[in-house]
Amino acid sequence: MAVQDQSSYKVKKYFEHGVDVFLPHLSINYIVFGFDNPNLKILVQRLFNQEFWLLPGGYIYKNENVNDAAYRNLKLSGLHDLFLRQFKTFGEATRVTKKSVPKPELLGISKELHDWVTQRFVTVGYYALVDFNKVKLQPGLLSNECTWLDINELDDLAMDHADIVREARGVLSEDLLNFPVVANLLPDSFTIPELKQLYESILDRSIDRGTFRKKTMKSGILEKVGKRRNAARRPPDLYKLNQEQYIRSLMKKTRFGF
Amino acid sequence: MAVQDQSSYKVKKYFEHGVDVFLPHLSINYIVFGFDNPNLKILVQRLFNQEFWLLPGGYIYKNENVNDAAYRNLKLSGLHDLFLRQFKTFGEATRVTKKSVPKPELLGISKELHDWVTQRFVTVGYYALVDFNKVKLQPGLLSNECTWLDINELDDLAMDHADIVREARGVLSEDLLNFPVVANLLPDSFTIPELKQLYESILDRSIDRGTFRKKTMKSGILEKVGKRRNAARRPPDLYKLNQEQYIRSLMKKTRFGF
Repeated sequence: MAVQDQSSYKVKKYFEHGVDVFLPHLSINYIVFGFDNPNLKILVQRLFNQEFWLLPGGYIYKNENVNDAAYRNLKLSGLHDLFLRQFKTFGEATRVTKKSVPKPELLGISKELHDWVTQRFVTVGYYALVDFNKVKLQPGLLSNECTWLDINELDDLAMDHADIVREARGVLSEDLLNFPVVANLLPDSFTIPELKQLYESILDRSIDRGTFRKKTMKSGILEKVGKRRNAARRPPDLYKLNQEQYIRSLMKKTRFGF
Repeated sequence: MAVQDQSSYKVKKYFEHGVDVFLPHLSINYIVFGFDNPNLKILVQRLFNQEFWLLPGGYIYKNENVNDAAYRNLKLSGLHDLFLRQFKTFGEATRVTKKSVPKPELLGISKELHDWVTQRFVTVGYYALVDFNKVKLQPGLLSNECTWLDINELDDLAMDHADIVREARGVLSEDLLNFPVVANLLPDSFTIPELKQLYESILDRSIDRGTFRKKTMKSGILEKVGKRRNAARRPPDLYKLNQEQYIRSLMKKTRFGF
């Protein structure tokens, strides 16, 4: 159960300096959505020596923009060049005491060094979308383990993090119907049924096949790139996103409205 | 220019206790939109003895939910039973130093009492919609003057408050096309052109008359209540919102898409 020496030293330094360098009572958390067809997943991590899963997140330097802190922390998960969407701030006074509260003493930190992290925190929530197959995750500074958790299996999340994920999914669902936000969730080429499956996984409901095909084709954001090889008798068409049309749709705020 | 004695005492007490009772570095601000046909306006206030206008706002007690703090402060503006929509958190490190920074010393407060308010603040932004004709505004605790400012005349706003208003208007525009959020902005009865004018004022663009009439009528949220009296040759129909259908549309997230 012992934390490795080097990690232990880093963790201790982090807490020792934290009280001086970070804004008190304020944190950021980010939800990273990945699509492992047909499942929507989120990135979670485990603190050293603790059982439950946490959303990744971090603190804000006293002179740092909150958005910059979000991107800086995202890099600790091994994620670069992603768009982070700030979607809500969580400010319930009792939110961190709800369940599975992290115990800094299990990180080998003495009480006087970790008092500042066990106080109340208001957290600014962000979400990002990634291509599940392309990212190489890292566990972050205070953690030695990270994984993808199914969006429908949030019971093991600490504190109010399951609520935060549900809120993020709600906003993503809204965004999905208002903007073509799916680019980062898709592989390089895909079939229409696979795209439909992605929408269904996020919206958590089924979509009429005909309507879906008609509306996506009409939107002009799809471009045929060939047929799927090694398929059955009738190999399905493969598509990719037309980036130019995609940006144009973003500007126009194309509404699909399935 | 002297602040009245009673106000002065209250203000001093507020700052004296503030450092102990409020979360440091965190505030809320609320944008109250009112529709004074054909102009969209926002509520602003002026601090005692200071020239520029500010969005109303306040601080969060150490044990208070952030949302509750927003509603508590809203009441100081004389506004009750309104829905507050949290729309974005503003976390730029230099945001309060941008322009027209409030000077607590002009409130008659000594430096040691106001040090905590001149530090960096991250602010959680909310917006609310009110019927311009029905509200009786109050200037708030640290202010003796409040007014409605035209949404297109934001030059006199302090700090980054003009940016905050522009962001709020953008989110309101999105919400407007996704949800029927206009109830609180409307008088008891109105004509279709007046309703269209409201949409145009928020969206800051013109809408096709035929499309607007067709879509709003089809949505079922309007109910005819008579004709406008004292009108010209052809008195226009008056409508009110059908509350039941309105709520149903909210649940279904009816998309108008003008």
